[in-house]
Amino acid sequence: MKKLSVFLVISLMCGIAFAQQSLWGTQPAVSPEIHSDNTVTFRLKAPKAVTVQVTGDFLPTQKIDTPYGKYDVPGVVSLLENKEGVWEYTTPKPLKPELYTYSFILDGLKIDDPGNVYLIRDVATLMNVFIIDGGRAHLYKVNKVPHGTVSRVWYNSPTLGMDRRMTVYTPAGYENNGKHYPVLYLLHGMGGDEEAWIALGRTAQVMDNLIAEGKAKPMIVVMTNGNASQEAAPGESSLGFVSPSMQLPKTMDGSFETAFPDVVKFVDKNYRTIKRKSERAIAGLSMGGFHSLHISKQFPDMFDYVGLFSAAIMPDKDTKSPIYENMEGKLKVQFSKKPALYWIAIGKSDFLYKANEDYRKLLDEKGYKYTYYETGEGHIWRNWRIYLSEFAPLLFR
Amino acid sequence: MKKLSVFLVISLMCGIAFAQQSLWGTQPAVSPEIHSDNTVTFRLKAPKAVTVQVTGDFLPTQKIDTPYGKYDVPGVVSLLENKEGVWEYTTPKPLKPELYTYSFILDGLKIDDPGNVYLIRDVATLMNVFIIDGGRAHLYKVNKVPHGTVSRVWYNSPTLGMDRRMTVYTPAGYENNGKHYPVLYLLHGMGGDEEAWIALGRTAQVMDNLIAEGKAKPMIVVMTNGNASQEAAPGESSLGFVSPSMQLPKTMDGSFETAFPDVVKFVDKNYRTIKRKSERAIAGLSMGGFHSLHISKQFPDMFDYVGLFSAAIMPDKDTKSPIYENMEGKLKVQFSKKPALYWIAIGKSDFLYKANEDYRKLLDEKGYKYTYYETGEGHIWRNWRIYLSEFAPLLFR
Repeated sequence: MKKLSVFLVISLMCGIAFAQQSLWGTQPAVSPEIHSDNTVTFRLKAPKAVTVQVTGDFLPTQKIDTPYGKYDVPGVVSLLENKEGVWEYTTPKPLKPELYTYSFILDGLKIDDPGNVYLIRDVATLMNVFIIDGGRAHLYKVNKVPHGTVSRVWYNSPTLGMDRRMTVYTPAGYENNGKHYPVLYLLHGMGGDEEAWIALGRTAQVMDNLIAEGKAKPMIVVMTNGNASQEAAPGESSLGFVSPSMQLPKTMDGSFETAFPDVVKFVDKNYRTIKRKSERAIAGLSMGGFHSLHISKQFPDMFDYVGLFSAAIMPDKDTKSPIYENMEGKLKVQFSKKPALYWIAIGKSDFLYKANEDYRKLLDEKGYKYTYYETGEGHIWRNWRIYLSEFAPLLFR
Repeated sequence: MKKLSVFLVISLMCGIAFAQQSLWGTQPAVSPEIHSDNTVTFRLKAPKAVTVQVTGDFLPTQKIDTPYGKYDVPGVVSLLENKEGVWEYTTPKPLKPELYTYSFILDGLKIDDPGNVYLIRDVATLMNVFIIDGGRAHLYKVNKVPHGTVSRVWYNSPTLGMDRRMTVYTPAGYENNGKHYPVLYLLHGMGGDEEAWIALGRTAQVMDNLIAEGKAKPMIVVMTNGNASQEAAPGESSLGFVSPSMQLPKTMDGSFETAFPDVVKFVDKNYRTIKRKSERAIAGLSMGGFHSLHISKQFPDMFDYVGLFSAAIMPDKDTKSPIYENMEGKLKVQFSKKPALYWIAIGKSDFLYKANEDYRKLLDEKGYKYTYYETGEGHIWRNWRIYLSEFAPLLFR
């Protein structure tokens, strides 16, 4: 039998890759390069460009005018071109440990970094990602610890009349230890979907690391799709590769909250859960905090732990749903049952800060017990990763 | 309690998004636009660009010179700029049903389409993706059928001495029907990993659709990582967000084949499998075909169904491993046990065509029974999706 050299095979395949590459100019520049002192260099090989900038949350924010007032948005900084046509920018100071996102702006066009295949989608925006290790950001990395399983699962919702997709994290060992586990239901914000917490929130890494360090109890984490009109995240349903949208129908109209028992029933039936209120938590960010608030008071015997992360509090005044009726009466019932934890977290510059302050005043007036956690900054994923990593260790104690 | 309008919340959030967008010029142009006649328009808003091209596998290939000879690579075509600075190209003819990948080339720099958030990574290359529905490509779409679960699972390999990541597809209904299932082990090629088949191969969609149509039996599909030095796909291991590489150590040296029983043991222990040779298949593309060939003959009582998709056949002549010794003797044992299916598929222009032809000659000489399936084109994912959708229906009959 004639032997075909495996090196020849490799060479041929790489030959094609290199040849294709030559059509597109040369290999991308190394970018981002994280130096040993945690300064970072961004590079883009673009000899014909007139201007190249980088924008991202590693830069100080800048205030800009919008039709809705002044807002903080990520800063923008220019790269400088060297003789080889490679544009370059190095941060003047080391970056603090964190998961950062960024994009290049090439002659005014926002593009992904061709040197970095790691991207995260936030609604309709793709951004490159990198991590500066250390401190809390160590939780966001894959480390040498036992890893849980992440599953994309379809469940039937009789209430919504459709099959729907969810992401489920089961802790390391779940497959073969026969144990039963508590469950955290973790809900995304407006424009998000069942991919948001696992991608932007780094939930699998945070949970793997917290559990391995003994800081959180092993638990199942169920990340639903909170857009009641949607079967699944964009690209994952029969609608095909649609352009993701911020504004979807049936997001904060009571539909998702009404149908939530379908989720709990499915999870309790198909996973080894502990089917008790004391072993169930619900938390969410922004719209997901709103959902958590209203679901937990609508079904006061379902969840003993509630987390409101930068939560929207009240529905639009024109929204009619039994879910939002008799708010104070339902809260009274919920708090009469003494939830093990009612946790409210928000950033000081969040545009929902005042709404949360008002809500806390109401709880204070009524003497309802809650825990409050305040951070800097606003309505951003950096805060939601912090809240998850603070909230999860408090559960099921 | 003061009510914060939910519409205000939406507006604020969108306001920020729009404001950010204004930093980067306007919204991306609509791209790709698939017209009702299956012609497709690609658009890029880049008023300052001098040239914009698109390359992708929807274009006729072109021959180029490489250090290894002439090779077919995807064609490149120019876009034309309109008055608004939007560059545009419409295919002159309708595209045939298929999953296509493409990239823009902006003044020589390969970039992703800012109008399309759907990307697939092939080794170190990200490409945008779209699907023209119809024919076999209907299998590659998410359709309104029952959906299986896709899990990323870590298993321990005592032989390799590490925890390793795999992707597991379990068919719709698996979670709660108590049934036991046959298993297809599906292996990737050089440079690939446990993400390759699910992303580029559309395995979940192909299996969901074939099973729903009654064309394939419900089965579990296990997609391993065939790079024995790697714990997990790039970005999913403790190495962090490394640049993916085509050439890795310990890919075709016998290590993966030797350790394969660890995978089967884990799957048989942790999933409701039917633990019999007659209910196990192994198949792979290129290097994965090579792995399937050598694993199935090394462990002749493990797999009754073998699929070699554009397979590499023999190791490099300098590679020493007991796995590759006594090839003919092991094949004799394997074929004496009359495998239910030994399936060889390759494209006419594949650079491994001759090696496969030689291998088939050997099998013919020995009177070993196999099924041969030949297609056009070469060593490309389009063929491997075809082979999966042809092979899966033949299994476990």
